[in-house]
Amino acid sequence: MTMRIDSVDFFYLSMPTVTLEADGSQDALLVRVTADGHVGWGECEASPLASIAAFVAPRSHGACQPVSASVIGERLDSPDDILRIAALVQHNSMDLLQAAHTFSGIEIALWDLLGRVREEPVWRLLGYDRAHAKTPYASVLFGDTPQETLDKGREQVRRGFRGVKFGWGAFGAGSPADDADQLHAAREAVGEDGLLFVDAGQVWGSDTDAALARLASLEAVRATWIEEPFEASEYDAHARLAASARTVRVAGGEASHNEAMARNLVDYGKVGFLQIDTGRIGGIGPAHRAARYADAREVTFVNHTFTSHLALSASLQPYAGLEHHAICEYPAEPKQLALDITTHHLALDESGTVTAPERPGLGVDVDADALMQYERVIDIVVDGRSVFDSPRIGAIASAERRIAS
Amino acid sequence: MTMRIDSVDFFYLSMPTVTLEADGSQDALLVRVTADGHVGWGECEASPLASIAAFVAPRSHGACQPVSASVIGERLDSPDDILRIAALVQHNSMDLLQAAHTFSGIEIALWDLLGRVREEPVWRLLGYDRAHAKTPYASVLFGDTPQETLDKGREQVRRGFRGVKFGWGAFGAGSPADDADQLHAAREAVGEDGLLFVDAGQVWGSDTDAALARLASLEAVRATWIEEPFEASEYDAHARLAASARTVRVAGGEASHNEAMARNLVDYGKVGFLQIDTGRIGGIGPAHRAARYADAREVTFVNHTFTSHLALSASLQPYAGLEHHAICEYPAEPKQLALDITTHHLALDESGTVTAPERPGLGVDVDADALMQYERVIDIVVDGRSVFDSPRIGAIASAERRIAS
Repeated sequence: MTMRIDSVDFFYLSMPTVTLEADGSQDALLVRVTADGHVGWGECEASPLASIAAFVAPRSHGACQPVSASVIGERLDSPDDILRIAALVQHNSMDLLQAAHTFSGIEIALWDLLGRVREEPVWRLLGYDRAHAKTPYASVLFGDTPQETLDKGREQVRRGFRGVKFGWGAFGAGSPADDADQLHAAREAVGEDGLLFVDAGQVWGSDTDAALARLASLEAVRATWIEEPFEASEYDAHARLAASARTVRVAGGEASHNEAMARNLVDYGKVGFLQIDTGRIGGIGPAHRAARYADAREVTFVNHTFTSHLALSASLQPYAGLEHHAICEYPAEPKQLALDITTHHLALDESGTVTAPERPGLGVDVDADALMQYERVIDIVVDGRSVFDSPRIGAIASAERRIAS
Repeated sequence: MTMRIDSVDFFYLSMPTVTLEADGSQDALLVRVTADGHVGWGECEASPLASIAAFVAPRSHGACQPVSASVIGERLDSPDDILRIAALVQHNSMDLLQAAHTFSGIEIALWDLLGRVREEPVWRLLGYDRAHAKTPYASVLFGDTPQETLDKGREQVRRGFRGVKFGWGAFGAGSPADDADQLHAAREAVGEDGLLFVDAGQVWGSDTDAALARLASLEAVRATWIEEPFEASEYDAHARLAASARTVRVAGGEASHNEAMARNLVDYGKVGFLQIDTGRIGGIGPAHRAARYADAREVTFVNHTFTSHLALSASLQPYAGLEHHAICEYPAEPKQLALDITTHHLALDESGTVTAPERPGLGVDVDADALMQYERVIDIVVDGRSVFDSPRIGAIASAERRIAS
């Protein structure tokens, strides 16, 4: 069998209104790849228009080619081909910054396609014998007041989450005393035995002192981690905070757009938790290597996901077989769009855990019918020639109905 | 005086044909910023369409807004305002990878505008007392054969360059013996006293052994540096090569898209030369801080520039006043487009050196008339609504003629 990649289509979907809240489930960029009649789906994280542009942009020179140049027509018979195509993108799009995000969704779709053809879950293609259950936590924003934070956290506990992550809002920008009040409310919400996580959303930039001023209260409330205290590449600040902490560990990694950045955050940033978004780091392959790297260094790997269950499945595959990496970020309150992307969902089982599907590929199907209402139509024209003309999700829906009937 | 940023216009220019050669002067993305009737110009490095998209993309959420959201309408009275706007972009476009490249050109234009208003060169706004002369080197690609390499290098020496950088081509991908032949030809070309630089163009990925296999011949021909031996974030590989070298130093940094990445390459990658592209790192401000950081650590700062003399001036400003950082990458054989961007050029003086202009702003003027022939017209439409409709460089030319007459 020799398959060649025939087409790569991007579907830009969004809620009717996209607000300024720190909620990444308000839009999505789905990727559909076909190879010899087989189909795979993936999802790119954030800024659909910029990622589409990086696929179709006219070349600037040999090391700044659009992502399409390294994908269309390539052979796709094995995981090695995915690795080979990733190396092509790295080389040919070296100077195109957005390329990593664009390719991430494509790479995920290549794994999905290959898994469907071989009738194996992606995690098995990665060499894992089984998929272990993960304990999901719910992510919520800090409330405007400690009372609001308490209420929001309790709501997630009521829904069955053993762990809750609180983040963003005003946390970190006001006084350490205010932040302490918020943290105590958060601990109260999750209860004595709940898992409490805190996400600072890079609020302290590179200011280690500002982070250190919150360390005592983070440890007083037994936070498991403090996430993204600094800008992503500020390794020295991360390491200094980690060195001062007794119980809380530093978490980060979502901004990694290549495997080396993930390793660097472990080696130089001294994080205790490595959070990787398969929709940004270049897909499932580099995320899998990052997970094994973390595992070998007693760093816990965690997925970073706040969008659809397609993205959730893609983000579980890289560490599905690593039993001792058992925490999972679970999109607790996504917008309806994110839920509508797949026909079924990775629901919590009776023990409140979630497991990568025992089904071919990513194990989820895209619900093209449901997505027509969210479609955004993009046209990009260069010198009067169309370089991107949105494919219509409705056409996919019709094609699937024909196959089904 | 209070100025507000009124408009940011992007002009996508390119040669009629853009080839696959590793020559970045084949296209350009100029940025024109206006504030209360004053004008400044900047230039973004590589992939114009992707960078335009990052300026106009519909927001994905609060931390993934287009660059425009943090720029238009902002106050611009001092360098502190530029720093403040940069922090806004960092925060509001945190998840939009391409934003750093888009903002780089804008940031350069903000400095140019401010310098013109204050009638001071940008380097003086940065706190330097004077601009020191730099010794330029010419960049050429390795020839297909050592003889070709010899001929290409000799041509640059004849043109007056004391230093020549050879890069890319087949270097690093074949046998170490072939590479040694190429290196000896390169040394022969520049002569006993010439400066010889070698650019590996990331060819060895993260393979330290492959780089080490060339170390003896790099040192035999007295190369000053080996540039980008590895992918940009592979700090450990950089550091291991640096530790094994006796005379040749490791160079890198062009891929830095924020200041922390530049510092990391110094601290963890142990480079001896830090090469920063103001069109990628976020502009002149972060490049200036990177230069001072290098200076304090006995690392030599070098500009990374292979396009226009506007980009060249922008890349000289950050280290103009650092006397002991005296090497300058000079676009030796740019395409005609790159030369046509400015009305005059930073020519070599009688001693063969080049100095940042003693003129307001960047000290170069854009030649709008000359650029009309290179104009590429971009239209980006989202849901039937135009979000980008190329401004015409011809309109700028007419306006300038009206002012001049």
